[in-house]
Amino acid sequence: MTELSNTYDVIVVGGGISGLSAAKLLKANGLSPVVLEARDRVGGRTFTVRNKETKWVDLGGAYIGPTQNRILRLAKEYGIQTYKVNEQESLVHYVNGKSYPFRGSFPPMWNPIVLLDFNNLWRTMDEMGREIPREAPWRCPRALCCTVRRFAKLFVNVNVTSEPHEVSALWFLWYVKQCGGTMRIFSTTNGGQERKFAGGSSQISECMARELGERVKLQSPVCRIDQSGDTVAVETLDKLTYTAKYVIVATPPALNLKMHFNPELPPLRNQLINRVPMGSVIKCMVYYKENFWRKKGYCGSMVIEEEGAPIGLTLDDTKPDGTVPCIMGFILARKCRKLLGLTKEERIVKIKTISNRIHVSTCVCQPVHYEEKNWCEEEYSGGCYTAYFPPGILTQFGKVLREPVGKLYFAGTETATEWSGYMEGAVQAGERAAREVLCAMNKIHQSQIWQTEPESMEVPARPFATSFWERNLPSVGGLFKLVGISTVLSVATAAGVVAYKKGLLSRS
Amino acid sequence: MTELSNTYDVIVVGGGISGLSAAKLLKANGLSPVVLEARDRVGGRTFTVRNKETKWVDLGGAYIGPTQNRILRLAKEYGIQTYKVNEQESLVHYVNGKSYPFRGSFPPMWNPIVLLDFNNLWRTMDEMGREIPREAPWRCPRALCCTVRRFAKLFVNVNVTSEPHEVSALWFLWYVKQCGGTMRIFSTTNGGQERKFAGGSSQISECMARELGERVKLQSPVCRIDQSGDTVAVETLDKLTYTAKYVIVATPPALNLKMHFNPELPPLRNQLINRVPMGSVIKCMVYYKENFWRKKGYCGSMVIEEEGAPIGLTLDDTKPDGTVPCIMGFILARKCRKLLGLTKEERIVKIKTISNRIHVSTCVCQPVHYEEKNWCEEEYSGGCYTAYFPPGILTQFGKVLREPVGKLYFAGTETATEWSGYMEGAVQAGERAAREVLCAMNKIHQSQIWQTEPESMEVPARPFATSFWERNLPSVGGLFKLVGISTVLSVATAAGVVAYKKGLLSRS
Repeated sequence: MTELSNTYDVIVVGGGISGLSAAKLLKANGLSPVVLEARDRVGGRTFTVRNKETKWVDLGGAYIGPTQNRILRLAKEYGIQTYKVNEQESLVHYVNGKSYPFRGSFPPMWNPIVLLDFNNLWRTMDEMGREIPREAPWRCPRALCCTVRRFAKLFVNVNVTSEPHEVSALWFLWYVKQCGGTMRIFSTTNGGQERKFAGGSSQISECMARELGERVKLQSPVCRIDQSGDTVAVETLDKLTYTAKYVIVATPPALNLKMHFNPELPPLRNQLINRVPMGSVIKCMVYYKENFWRKKGYCGSMVIEEEGAPIGLTLDDTKPDGTVPCIMGFILARKCRKLLGLTKEERIVKIKTISNRIHVSTCVCQPVHYEEKNWCEEEYSGGCYTAYFPPGILTQFGKVLREPVGKLYFAGTETATEWSGYMEGAVQAGERAAREVLCAMNKIHQSQIWQTEPESMEVPARPFATSFWERNLPSVGGLFKLVGISTVLSVATAAGVVAYKKGLLSRS
Repeated sequence: MTELSNTYDVIVVGGGISGLSAAKLLKANGLSPVVLEARDRVGGRTFTVRNKETKWVDLGGAYIGPTQNRILRLAKEYGIQTYKVNEQESLVHYVNGKSYPFRGSFPPMWNPIVLLDFNNLWRTMDEMGREIPREAPWRCPRALCCTVRRFAKLFVNVNVTSEPHEVSALWFLWYVKQCGGTMRIFSTTNGGQERKFAGGSSQISECMARELGERVKLQSPVCRIDQSGDTVAVETLDKLTYTAKYVIVATPPALNLKMHFNPELPPLRNQLINRVPMGSVIKCMVYYKENFWRKKGYCGSMVIEEEGAPIGLTLDDTKPDGTVPCIMGFILARKCRKLLGLTKEERIVKIKTISNRIHVSTCVCQPVHYEEKNWCEEEYSGGCYTAYFPPGILTQFGKVLREPVGKLYFAGTETATEWSGYMEGAVQAGERAAREVLCAMNKIHQSQIWQTEPESMEVPARPFATSFWERNLPSVGGLFKLVGISTVLSVATAAGVVAYKKGLLSRS
């Protein structure tokens, strides 16, 4: 192959959803892009495996829901159907060694004092989130005085695969906010986990890659980006050189480090990419002969609060037609780092032990098959689901997250402003970066770079209703102030809560 | 050049002090090492510039002191002299807009209440440090319950070029401890900043490189390490392949990311290298016609507590013979990130403004020359002085910091257990990694890998004496408890402190 034949308008580094949607948009606008992907497959952090035991299984990103209109648009274009994750029966909250069935997004709290703070936690997070600019959280007026707060540990574990003390409070508040708030991010029905793609999420990338044809180069890890000439020269590990007018880097920010840059990246970006680690998660799928949980009145969703339990959250992963009964579970953050040293067999035993304890079941729930994926071992992801910002980093380095560097533009779900960390964010970021390049080439106006997306007809978003009590109940601290004014009044409030609590937290 | 001629016993990645001292020890043991260095110079984070204005100036690591016996041994071997940093006259503490001259390592605190907590801070840090195993801080019994404490901000800034809220409390306590405690790390006389090398610190690396001759390859950034065969294949960006029986990676841990590994690194290491960012610092040298500060009775050391001041700490950097009068200053952590966006000229103006305010001087202190080095811009360092551990990382990932991966061994000052982060730690780590390889080749016994170093005759360490009061004064919290028992007694204690305070903190 000659040098000349490797010349393109735009080189996209990374063949995940973000890079491919950037290339797709560029091609649709008459440009000539090429996608350089390190792995022998496209899809990045989405990874659908097909085999006879599972038919197909998403070992990476899988869930989609209302307000994720870009990824839904892509799916529709390619005729990929969605189906609802089963949430018809009761969910289970396992805590203090016992299972409590419940309905709605969050487990109910029966102690009225706990309930006050529980209610206040979500309300406060959403209120603080409203103050944070979605597209520039580092400009938040509270940014410098935000101190680490006690978030519900599991809520942080499940949403960002990290520990509360590892992440910046400002960043976590921003993260929840840009997913639409605490209810939207955590809910199955009407939330981020409402649906999956029939046939698996990799299909999105596979369809885009098919459309791009020869323009997608697999097993092409990029090791050098040279901007010192008139065009940008990009070198892969297999010693091929590609040249183009522009480059879109569509990898997690930390993976910029896999490339050697000439000239060097600017100082803030050079340090940023060392400060945004990827979360830690093992995704586990346990297959059963029968869908025994539904017969017992459980939908398969479990919120598990027990240090000894490997899994923190489960969802039903049975196929939409009821075949291949399966429970999906996440081993999250600290537990992931602890259990990744075990063998697969040892992990299965641990999962079986806790699963039997929760379901108090007998032979019926012996697994017939098991699949897992430890994302910490992936050199070209660094972890999953997404990058997190440790304390102090967002305010000092955030502003360069998607700031172009010469002819380099930055995509990847981490650079999104809606559903960053999700497949939806990957599409938003990829298309935005593509339009930045179109703008740099004077093909569109600067005001066209950021575009809103019409709502999906098939998957519309419903608002989350909050009750008068949810909006107005004090926190425990607030309650103590009330007590200072009138003990009688506060006791009456608490009593009212006890009477109200069940309805209060059932929102399904 | 044929493949065969590129075959060695050991490939060392990184030509800083750590990598070169590894190669030197291997060669001395009859092996054939090669050092692959990304830059066009050796020395890594030490960087001596020679020009007519400065004669020579260390824009990187420069200071050495008692208990740093390995780097002192190397210097002696090569006939590199050390000289004492000037601390004969008063130091200056600039706070609340005023200059206060003082003697000793730490500025005195005149408010007795403040003094109690100030004294308690250092004592507590040293006491907590004693509980942390130097070689395995992640095993500290307190590790999981250590919460973020209020360290003196400037103390953290100066020692680890980061902000207190960015770093793990456990890691910072460990860091201070393995440098010999709060007094040893922060002092000029009898501490880590006591001396410099006449002619500059790069000489250490240059002498080692000269000894290694053709075995040091400059401008050879490593982009691939392949362990899948019988020997390890290491590829550089200029498309050369080197093969060897073993590899020592002597870079900061985060720079492992610059290389593509086959097979991939184990999951914990794959994630660790994304979790240990490098600090942020600009080293500034301001040259004057005259050594005016000494005439005024100041040694040139300044501890500057003012948000608007760029520099946090200064030291006299005049040549040992009194020529080339110079003040060295550090722009640290948050200030570094803020001020690196300015031009060099704008930074000079800011430094001049605060310098004039501190010295209340006139024309005599107009700078005649300026040198600076922003280490955040260095692709092949990532920052300076060293890597830090954000909250939660040391306990979960620390144990794999220097755990070999197949035929890969890890050096670099970050992997040291004494003076990690310093030139001394670089030597300890490099020699230890070299002996790990010797042990793997059955040339030495496992018990010989870790070796203690005899004390330098020329630069002996003196103990730091602590007074009865320093050992026994309560903190303010403790004082309040005392007050609960006897107000009279506590007032008497405080009064005693006021009388004692000057002597208490003068330890020179």
